Order: sequence, then C-alpha cells, then structure tokens
Amino acid sequence: TTPFDPSTHPHRRLNPLTNEYVLVSPHRTKRPWLGQTEPPQSLNLPEYDPQCYLCPGNTRAGGQKNDVYEHTMVFENDFAAVLPPPCPAPPPAPHPLLTTEPVQGGCDVLIFHPRHDLTLARLPVLDIERIIEEWCTVYKKRGAQEGIEYVQIFENKGAIMGCSNPHPHGQVWSLSAIPSLPGSELTNLRRYSLTDVAPSDAPRGPLGRPCMLCEYAHFEVGADSETGRVVVKNDDWVALVPWWAVWPFEIMLLPYKRHIPSIAHLTAEEKKSFADILSKVTKRYDNLFSCSFAYSMGIHQRPVLPSSDTAIPEDQDEDNLAHLHLHFSPPLLRSASVRKFLVGFEMMAEPQRDLTPEQAAARLRGCSEVHYLDREV
Amino acid sequence: TTPFDPSTHPHRRLNPLTNEYVLVSPHRTKRPWLGQTEPPQSLNLPEYDPQCYLCPGNTRAGGQKNDVYEHTMVFENDFAAVLPPPCPAPPPAPHPLLTTEPVQGGCDVLIFHPRHDLTLARLPVLDIERIIEEWCTVYKKRGAQEGIEYVQIFENKGAIMGCSNPHPHGQVWSLSAIPSLPGSELTNLRRYSLTDVAPSDAPRGPLGRPCMLCEYAHFEVGADSETGRVVVKNDDWVALVPWWAVWPFEIMLLPYKRHIPSIAHLTAEEKKSFADILSKVTKRYDNLFSCSFAYSMGIHQRPVLPSSDTAIPEDQDEDNLAHLHLHFSPPLLRSASVRKFLVGFEMMAEPQRDLTPEQAAARLRGCSEVHYLDREV
Ligand SMILES: O=P(O)(O)O[C@H]1O[C@H](CO)[C@@H](O)[C@H](O)[C@H]1O
Ligand SMILES: O=P(O)(O)O[C@H]1O[C@H](CO)[C@@H](O)[C@H](O)[C@H]1O
Repeated sequence: TTPFDPSTHPHRRLNPLTNEYVLVSPHRTKRPWLGQTEPPQSLNLPEYDPQCYLCPGNTRAGGQKNDVYEHTMVFENDFAAVLPPPCPAPPPAPHPLLTTEPVQGGCDVLIFHPRHDLTLARLPVLDIERIIEEWCTVYKKRGAQEGIEYVQIFENKGAIMGCSNPHPHGQVWSLSAIPSLPGSELTNLRRYSLTDVAPSDAPRGPLGRPCMLCEYAHFEVGADSETGRVVVKNDDWVALVPWWAVWPFEIMLLPYKRHIPSIAHLTAEEKKSFADILSKVTKRYDNLFSCSFAYSMGIHQRPVLPSSDTAIPEDQDEDNLAHLHLHFSPPLLRSASVRKFLVGFEMMAEPQRDLTPEQAAARLRGCSEVHYLDREV
Repeated sequence: TTPFDPSTHPHRRLNPLTNEYVLVSPHRTKRPWLGQTEPPQSLNLPEYDPQCYLCPGNTRAGGQKNDVYEHTMVFENDFAAVLPPPCPAPPPAPHPLLTTEPVQGGCDVLIFHPRHDLTLARLPVLDIERIIEEWCTVYKKRGAQEGIEYVQIFENKGAIMGCSNPHPHGQVWSLSAIPSLPGSELTNLRRYSLTDVAPSDAPRGPLGRPCMLCEYAHFEVGADSETGRVVVKNDDWVALVPWWAVWPFEIMLLPYKRHIPSIAHLTAEEKKSFADILSKVTKRYDNLFSCSFAYSMGIHQRPVLPSSDTAIPEDQDEDNLAHLHLHFSPPLLRSASVRKFLVGFEMMAEPQRDLTPEQAAARLRGCSEVHYLDREV
C-alpha cells in the first residue's frame, strides 16, 4: 500500500484557534486555469498624487484638509461602520430568532507615510516602527473610551482586497462588543489553557497555564527548518504558514519567546524586532510574484486593557490568556494575476486549499528579502 | 431621544444557524466608491461554443468527448478535490495541535442544459425540474457509496465567483466527513430542537420537536409582506433575505409548509414548486442590475440517507432534524460592476453589511419576474 503523502493525498486539518477544518487537495494545483484573471496591481505610482485624498495637504472626501504630515497620520473615517453614542436602544425582538444588539464605537484610518508609493514592503524599518507606535497609541486611546471592548487593527492592501486607495494605510475599528472571530479565538485559547498538555519548554501564559499559540510557535520554531512551515524568524518573532492555513500563502506572525497579550505589552526591543519582521515578510510577499502583493492583515490580541481602577492583578486577568498574533490573508495563488477563489464549496461547506502549507512556506523561504524594485540591475 | 431606526443606526444581528454575528452599518451605503470595479459579466453568449468543454459533443480538458446530451449531463470532475479510496492513513500527529484527518469521496459536475447561454434564470421551468431530478439522483447515488457522509451540492455562477466556464453547470462534492458549516448548522438545529419554544403553528420536526428553520420561515411568511424580508413565495417554498444575511442580496430558500430533511423527501408537487421558485428567484436576481447575476449557491440538508439495513425508525433518526434549505451568496452591492468586499474587518473580526436585509428584500420584491433579455421592446 502507498504511504501517506501530504502533497498528494487529500486530507483535512483542524484549526484549533477556530475549531474549523480546512480541506487540503494538493493534487488540484495541476488544474489548468481558464477563469478570471486579475488586473495588474498599480505599479508605477507617483510619490505624490494630487488626486489622492490621503496625500499630505490634500482635501479628503469629507472636505477636511490633511496636514502636511511627515510620518504617520490618524483621522476618523468619514464613513465609519460604527458610530459613537448616543445609540438608541433597539425595540424588543419580534421573535426570539430575530434579535438586535446595539453596537457603538469608532473607526480610524491610519496613514502609514506621506509617500503615496511606499507600502510596508518598501518603507525603511524606522518608519515601520512609527506605525507600530501609532497602533499602540490608538489601541490604548480607543480602549480607554467608555464602553469600548475590542480594538480591531487591520489593513486591506490592494484593489483586489477592496482597498479603494493605494496610498499605504490601515484601519482601526473599535467596538462595544468583541467581534465573532477574536471572540471564538479567545474561547479556544481559554479552553486550551485549562487542559493538561505534555510538558514542553514553551513559554506559559498567566498563572503558569499553557498557551496554545506559545506552544504552537515553540513547536514550529524547533521543527525542521528545511521542510517546515517557518518562513522567517528573528530574536522575538516568527512568521509561519500555519498547519491549518486557508489562503494559499497565508501567514501567521507572532512572538515566540514569551507570552505577550497585546501590543501594549511589547518592550522597546520587541517593537524594533516587530518592525524588522514586518519588513521582511512584506518584502518576501512582493518578491513572490514580483508585484505589490495584496492581502488583508489583522492584529488579534487581548480585548482592551483594564481601566486603571480595576483591581484584578495582571496574572489573574483572564484576558491576558490572549497571545498577540497577526494574520495575513493574501488571495493570490499562482501568479500576480491568478487568485484563489473561496466560493461555492468554501462558502457553503468548508475552506479548501490547493497547495500544502509546507509547499507555500518553502516558496516564501526561497524569496529574497531585497525588494525586487530596489534591486541593482 | 431619537428612536432606534434599523436603517440608520449600526447594530448587530445573530445568525442562529451558525451562532455568528453580522455587523449592520446601513448608513455606509452613502459612501462614494472609488475602488475596483468588475468587468461586465459575459452577455451575448452563443447557443453553442465550439471551444467550450461542456457543450454537447465537445472534448473535455481530460480528453473525454461529451455525449450529444439533450437535457442534463453528469460527469466526474477531472480535477476532483477529493478522491475515492484507497486513502493511505496519515502518520500520527507530530504534536496534538497538528492533526491530519484522512478524507475520501468524489466530485461530480452537473451540466444544467445543452444550451451554452441559458442559465437557471432563462431556462424553462420544465428544464429546472430535470436539474432537480439530477440533484436527487446524485444525492442518493453518492450517499449510498461506502464511507460517504455528506453530499454538498453547489453552483458557482459568474467569473467573479471563480467559475471558469459560463456554460451553466453546478457541482457536487461528496465527502467521508460532514464539512464544518453544515456540521455547525446541524449542531445548532439539534440544540434548538431540545429547547422550549413558545407554541406556534409552525411545522415541527421529528418526534414533534421544534425546528428552528420551520419556526423561522413560518414567522417570516406571516410577517408584514410590505416591510418584511420575504422576496417571493409559492405553495411550498419561500425565498427571503434572512434577518442575519451577510451578502447584500443574500437569499435563503426553503420549504415552509412542512418539515423536509432532504431533497429525497420532496413530493412530486414540491419538486415542481421548487423549480418554479428557483426560476423566479434567479430571474429577479438578473433583473436587479440587468446583468447575469453572479452568486454561489449551496444546498444544505441532512447527511446521506440511512442505508437500507439501518433499523432506526424515520422519526427517531436524529439526522432528520435537518431542514432542507438553499443559500444564495451573491457579491454585487450597488450595480453590475460594484461588489461588496468581505475583506479586512470581515475576515479578521466579523462580517459587516451596508444595507439592511429589509432594504435588500424590498429591492428584490420590486424586480420583475420576466427576464430583462426576454422582454418585448
Ligand atoms: O471547481 P472549479 O469550478 O474549477 O473551481 C471553483 O470552485 C471550487 C469550489 O468552490 C473552488 O475551490 C475554486 O477555487 C473555484 O475556482
Ligand atoms: O473602509 P474601506 O476601505 O472603504 O472598505 C473596505 O474595507 C472594509 C472593512 O474591511 C469593508 O467592509 C469594505 O467592503 C471594503 O471595501
């Protein structure tokens, strides 16, 4: 009988963070593609675009004029998905299956840099450090507002990912509720922390309880670096294609040396190495298909920090069971113009992927950390 | 204080089938759109395309020649995502967080009709009845195969939904495992069947236990038809934009007169009315933006039928707690060329929608049931 070969035999892998499966069908990579192709991602962008509502000194859609900012800039989204109070209370549900929950909050836009053409992959590491500082500031500021429970930091990069302006920027949506996905991750992290796990050298969470993500990252860093899922690591952080990745070149980026609940818990050194690895990951992404690689990125971490009048000691605060991590979900599959569609079966049944996470990691390991646009010719 | 207005005030709604929330931000519809627009969906298609590998008599990618079929045609996918046995057993997991589950099965393609240009929206109702018969045949046939647990019938329509051939067709993936989404729906249906619900005239499931979907459909059919979520109904079926819809014009289609676990349980009359409502829904969809409206559609129902040697009486078979329903997930938002992107916040936190389900239902109710291409001018 043939031995099992993960790059030939279809199989399912479980995502323990969400408790959902992914169907892996690696032999499907041989399938010819006759479907939709994507237009090239805007290449030669100018350093300044007079039409761009995010460039310094220009006027935004809402009519306000941008400062002539020199590094990052934060402003409130002119078309925010959640609004500040007062939020009128919804009427009682007409049927128990039809419930309405009020929600309030605020949406911020964070411009990464004055240069219209410099994405994370092309920004100097020092400028990425400034972005990390802004993330920390907005996480603390929004989190300290009355009623805010979760601060979701994310970036949509590329028109194919619904981004309507190529000027490098991210978003922060702060809500009075913990959204479904981070909520379910927190539930599963909490559940794991209460289980008996085999002793390992992995860092532990509060009260010495096991942390699923510390365990997982520790295992991956120690695994065979030639055949494994690690793409790149530095002193504090590891970027890997998780065992349960859904998107072809999905990456999870997380600290592996100690348990860290949120960006507010990072030391100065850890912020520097965070900027370093963000630069390396995004450069590899751009180099994979020699294009400005599209993705959605999101930071998952503990819900907002406790307010200063809360008396729970840090090591007894259940929310500290969260371990800071970033998800990168990029749509491209085979080239700059052929994407993976997560449609029929994926929407109606469960996600399905074509190449294995190990194959994807090997491809990304093979990419240079010098950006293709910055190479000497 | 302002009273709550669902079409102005952001709020969250719970999907009881999946236990996940959707964030509703109706005021966002006023946002200008400067992002990616979609190419027009292929209009003037020929009745026969010599290059199409699904047209009668043509040769497929795998080299086989199609019959000169006259109605529907079924064949095995040349690039199936799951394969028949033997499936070698995966090795033991290197870590409890890295598990591999073997999976086996088969993937079928179901061509709807010989005409290259006739989608469900343009096919005579009699031809849709033939498609329903094929769905029943393949559901029973694949379900009777050793080891198959779930038969997922779906359709990807339109290049924007990853469909690589406009010749009208759907797919059927049959697996040795119940996929995540129908699995979680079954869990929630079972849980609901065990709760005490207020008495109503809604049909009940096996053993007289309440059925969440029968309850829900019954409530919607009885609600105000001018302001509600029902798009169209006939003697047996109702098509509605569910309270918890994620996609702008998402529709759930289900029988509301009696509890029906699967398409194999439909009477001849119910199959006719099924074809009738499929025709009406797809015509309204095409008429909404005067285009061939893209979507992914999936049929959810009970796992495979019990084999004839199983002795469980029908009313004690837990799988009969499932209630047959179809989901339509169409991406378009504002016009034939402007879609909704479920990206950053949606991927990383929770789905967000712009117009309310009630507004979407009103728009679809306003559409004609005469296809725009078939109208007298
Ligand atoms: O099988 P097809 O039509 O070639 O492929 C399409 O449907 C599949 C099932 O939803 C998806 O996995 C593919 O990404 C999509 O392109
Ligand atoms: O806010 P933006 O960038 O205009 O909009 C983009 O990101 C949002 C948050 O992920 C999505 O809801 C929108 O569909 C997308 O187009």
